[in-house]
Amino acid sequence: MELGFIGLGTMGVPMVLNLLKAGHRVKVWNRSSAPLDELARAGAQPVDSPALAAQAEVLISMLGDDVAIRSVFIDGKGLDGLAAGSVHVNMSTVSVALAKEFAALHAERDVAYVSAPVLGRVDVAAAGNLNILASGPAQALARVQPLFDVLGRKTWPFGECAELACVAKLSANLMIAAAIESMAQASTLASGYGISRATFIEMITSTLFPVPVYQGYGQLMINKHFEPAGFKLSLGLKDIRLALEAGEVAQVPLPFASVLKDNLLDGMAHGQGDQDWASLSEVSARRAGSR
Amino acid sequence: MELGFIGLGTMGVPMVLNLLKAGHRVKVWNRSSAPLDELARAGAQPVDSPALAAQAEVLISMLGDDVAIRSVFIDGKGLDGLAAGSVHVNMSTVSVALAKEFAALHAERDVAYVSAPVLGRVDVAAAGNLNILASGPAQALARVQPLFDVLGRKTWPFGECAELACVAKLSANLMIAAAIESMAQASTLASGYGISRATFIEMITSTLFPVPVYQGYGQLMINKHFEPAGFKLSLGLKDIRLALEAGEVAQVPLPFASVLKDNLLDGMAHGQGDQDWASLSEVSARRAGSR
Amino acid sequence: MELGFIGLGTMGVPMVLNLLKAGHRVKVWNRSSAPLDELARAGAQPVDSPALAAQAEVLISMLGDDVAIRSVFIDGKGLDGLAAGSVHVNMSTVSVALAKEFAALHAERDVAYVSAPVLGRVDVAAAGNLNILASGPAQALARVQPLFDVLGRKTWPFGECAELACVAKLSANLMIAAAIESMAQASTLASGYGISRATFIEMITSTLFPVPVYQGYGQLMINKHFEPAGFKLSLGLKDIRLALEAGEVAQVPLPFASVLKDNLLDGMAHGQGDQDWASLSEVSARRAGSR
Amino acid sequence: MELGFIGLGTMGVPMVLNLLKAGHRVKVWNRSSAPLDELARAGAQPVDSPALAAQAEVLISMLGDDVAIRSVFIDGKGLDGLAAGSVHVNMSTVSVALAKEFAALHAERDVAYVSAPVLGRVDVAAAGNLNILASGPAQALARVQPLFDVLGRKTWPFGECAELACVAKLSANLMIAAAIESMAQASTLASGYGISRATFIEMITSTLFPVPVYQGYGQLMINKHFEPAGFKLSLGLKDIRLALEAGEVAQVPLPFASVLKDNLLDGMAHGQGDQDWASLSEVSARRAGSR
Repeated sequence: MELGFIGLGTMGVPMVLNLLKAGHRVKVWNRSSAPLDELARAGAQPVDSPALAAQAEVLISMLGDDVAIRSVFIDGKGLDGLAAGSVHVNMSTVSVALAKEFAALHAERDVAYVSAPVLGRVDVAAAGNLNILASGPAQALARVQPLFDVLGRKTWPFGECAELACVAKLSANLMIAAAIESMAQASTLASGYGISRATFIEMITSTLFPVPVYQGYGQLMINKHFEPAGFKLSLGLKDIRLALEAGEVAQVPLPFASVLKDNLLDGMAHGQGDQDWASLSEVSARRAGSR
Repeated sequence: MELGFIGLGTMGVPMVLNLLKAGHRVKVWNRSSAPLDELARAGAQPVDSPALAAQAEVLISMLGDDVAIRSVFIDGKGLDGLAAGSVHVNMSTVSVALAKEFAALHAERDVAYVSAPVLGRVDVAAAGNLNILASGPAQALARVQPLFDVLGRKTWPFGECAELACVAKLSANLMIAAAIESMAQASTLASGYGISRATFIEMITSTLFPVPVYQGYGQLMINKHFEPAGFKLSLGLKDIRLALEAGEVAQVPLPFASVLKDNLLDGMAHGQGDQDWASLSEVSARRAGSR
Repeated sequence: MELGFIGLGTMGVPMVLNLLKAGHRVKVWNRSSAPLDELARAGAQPVDSPALAAQAEVLISMLGDDVAIRSVFIDGKGLDGLAAGSVHVNMSTVSVALAKEFAALHAERDVAYVSAPVLGRVDVAAAGNLNILASGPAQALARVQPLFDVLGRKTWPFGECAELACVAKLSANLMIAAAIESMAQASTLASGYGISRATFIEMITSTLFPVPVYQGYGQLMINKHFEPAGFKLSLGLKDIRLALEAGEVAQVPLPFASVLKDNLLDGMAHGQGDQDWASLSEVSARRAGSR
Repeated sequence: MELGFIGLGTMGVPMVLNLLKAGHRVKVWNRSSAPLDELARAGAQPVDSPALAAQAEVLISMLGDDVAIRSVFIDGKGLDGLAAGSVHVNMSTVSVALAKEFAALHAERDVAYVSAPVLGRVDVAAAGNLNILASGPAQALARVQPLFDVLGRKTWPFGECAELACVAKLSANLMIAAAIESMAQASTLASGYGISRATFIEMITSTLFPVPVYQGYGQLMINKHFEPAGFKLSLGLKDIRLALEAGEVAQVPLPFASVLKDNLLDGMAHGQGDQDWASLSEVSARRAGSR
């Protein structure tokens, strides 16, 4: 397929490489040019503007947040490159509001807008094993399924409305955050009695919670290995804010998200914004007098 | 070994059967006599009082809560049966306060008191695959390790003080409760946008959280299969209260436990006390106008 | 003085009447024309657009929220009417973000922008007894002080930056909301033991809290007199959201505001959006099984 | 009347002086003998045991907490001094559980047990202006009303069951704590924008909240005058715990009390236990990076 791809960060690059390996032609654009050389060597075609990348059968975008999306597609005129009849697959984690707005903007241009945020970090993306949460017009979903099959191990459909996959992704992120926070609080409680955080976390992640989410963040807490961040606390705050906003629109109280937001702000106020959000354990410890 | 065993509920019975199979002699006592016949047929020796069961090299108790423990060992004079030099292994989930008090009461009688609450439900107990969280005098722990090897797949030592294993167990239960609650809230958020609870829970327990805690409680939420309860909401409230009490003594704020307590009380007030605590999803749904 | 006044709701009308009584000339504009006749009879001069009202020495605006402000000043071109050297006094309760943005937009036009939200309801406004929270350029504040002296009993200065008075106002509203919520929870606790809400509230508002905030909302709770609303629950939710947003920017955790937001959403989800926010007592009662 | 009075702390002494002034004969007992001389000079009769003080028509007790009450009446045998037909008026703030238990213990001895906790600090007690929250058998309440008229300005009856006045008192204390905490959070939010805590608190306690609770604690926050404590943070934690326990029995979620408990524990963990509980402002400030 003729593809465009915008957003060549740590996730975007391996995704493009997989698409090239599968035989697709990919025009690529990125704000900074650093990743372009590697991709060009692998067969991608760098272009000079978002609108040029958008001139494709299917455009995929993988950007950091609403601000980046707006900057590229509205201010940077990316939208204008999309041809009637094409599909834009936005794999970024964005707000419910942006998904609704973009679905309407694309519909005006007769372009199908698909939300397809993913579960999985860089290594999972490289292995083509992402879980893809997708929503959008049924026909468009069917059309891009072969691309999802290249990028991921499974696609989870959530319906026709663009915001549904975003809601599912934000709900999933809320559960990750709650898992981190619950381990932070529980291990601080153990600590308060002199049980080392390591002893407790190793037990709990070997017995009840032997999955990467708990094991990975547990190891970071044990080793206080918060920098460089796998996922920055400041980005965690953004995702929890988006979940709370989604909850507000749908009138769903989310008291765990509220606690998380307060604790993430506590972390921000103590200079932890660039640390991995596993450092929620430090917030918990600090409140308990640094046990 | 000559053993006594007090508390023949759903967990106690398979544990005694495993001890008998391993060649130990076991005197058994229970408040109601229902389970005694089965165990007698399997070779156990029913006795008429807690104190008679306590006349053993090692006494194991597996009772429901602090109230049951006090009723058997203080009011029911179980303590008086323990001979100097013996070991009492309390495998019940009890409060930090009770563990400290019992450690002292046993020390006065020159009896070693070991806390050994477990992770795992009935089927795990039957298979001898429990995870045993243990604390108490090192010598006593060493002496009962062969029994732990019969009952469990692994023993996790937490130190010399009796309360430490209790703290670890309460911390673990807090994490289970938080896992349930986070799934309840996240799936209610998804529901608020028309995504069925089943669709969201199946996705999340197949991807990020593919472990029995999430999968089991997730299925209960999907099917609203809350009765008969695997673990009653009213008992969940008790465990969260014990975690909060432990936090108070050690001056550790536990905001997730606070949210859980409020939501469990909301459940109690709506007649959910005898339901499985997976019905926290109903509390969440009700607050959101029953999505 | 030559004044313009935009926003003739329940607060705006008595404020304009007071300004007229004090001898000022006031051009008035409102989205709906209903209030114009009364004000014209009292000497005000109705005009046909926001921009015409803005052609004055001092323009005062008293609108419902950020959306109304933007609609009038940006989309409705109100900004374009402001002459260099004039002052715009915005007495609406708006977000910190809007205050910052508007301060900059006005500075570009060489117009001084003053934030001056008020404490007090309609009767207080009519009596000219408002408390006015003000921030903005010192010279502009001095220039409009005679107007504040007409409208209010006291002006509380918070500094030069436009957002400061907004922050003070949002902080004050948070305290009102917390007062309501604390009375709701405490009286529900009393209710849970069979003490009527009226008995408890009458005691507490006669002893520790004998002030209109508690007494007024207490009476509404006692009589379940939630409609017509003095201040709608949906507007309360908006104000709490603005406080939380302000907290997020300044990295200040606000756990009471978080609880309030969750409870206000619970109210929204149960059809209480148009009720007075005193009906937070119903949320509390409902969670306790409707005591 | 022949009275006994147990508990001669800062509140008890002026109360006894008022009773003497009104012409009553008062036998007094206290754990430490320090206050006895002053009271003897004023006409009171010091006695050597709680049981001797209890030999009276009406016994009044004013002790610190459940522990002190139990120590005096159970371990110290105070209960044994009470004659059939007499009345015990317990003016201490105690738990719901203790009130129920004591009502039963007194009924067995044919002694009427009245709960009568008070609102007001030392100066209010000295002026005989306490607000007295009372519950107990109607006949007993009528009998002691003349004493309440000496000690207080008004008696608020809550019914026949001993625990009802306790619940009302704990609910009132919850509202005081919430008032402090709301002022702490709101002024920290203002602080986060550079508005001094003093500026905000002076405004809010002059406008919306011009009552001693807010004004007094507000001044303590402004001056960081937390020692010596008027009311210790550790005692505040105890009262909030009692409110939460009362809520748990009646199945009433109390999310503000939950936030308070977590913040009070944060204070305890930072060595603020002996400070006035107005220092909740420091907890709030610390979480925000010490604004």
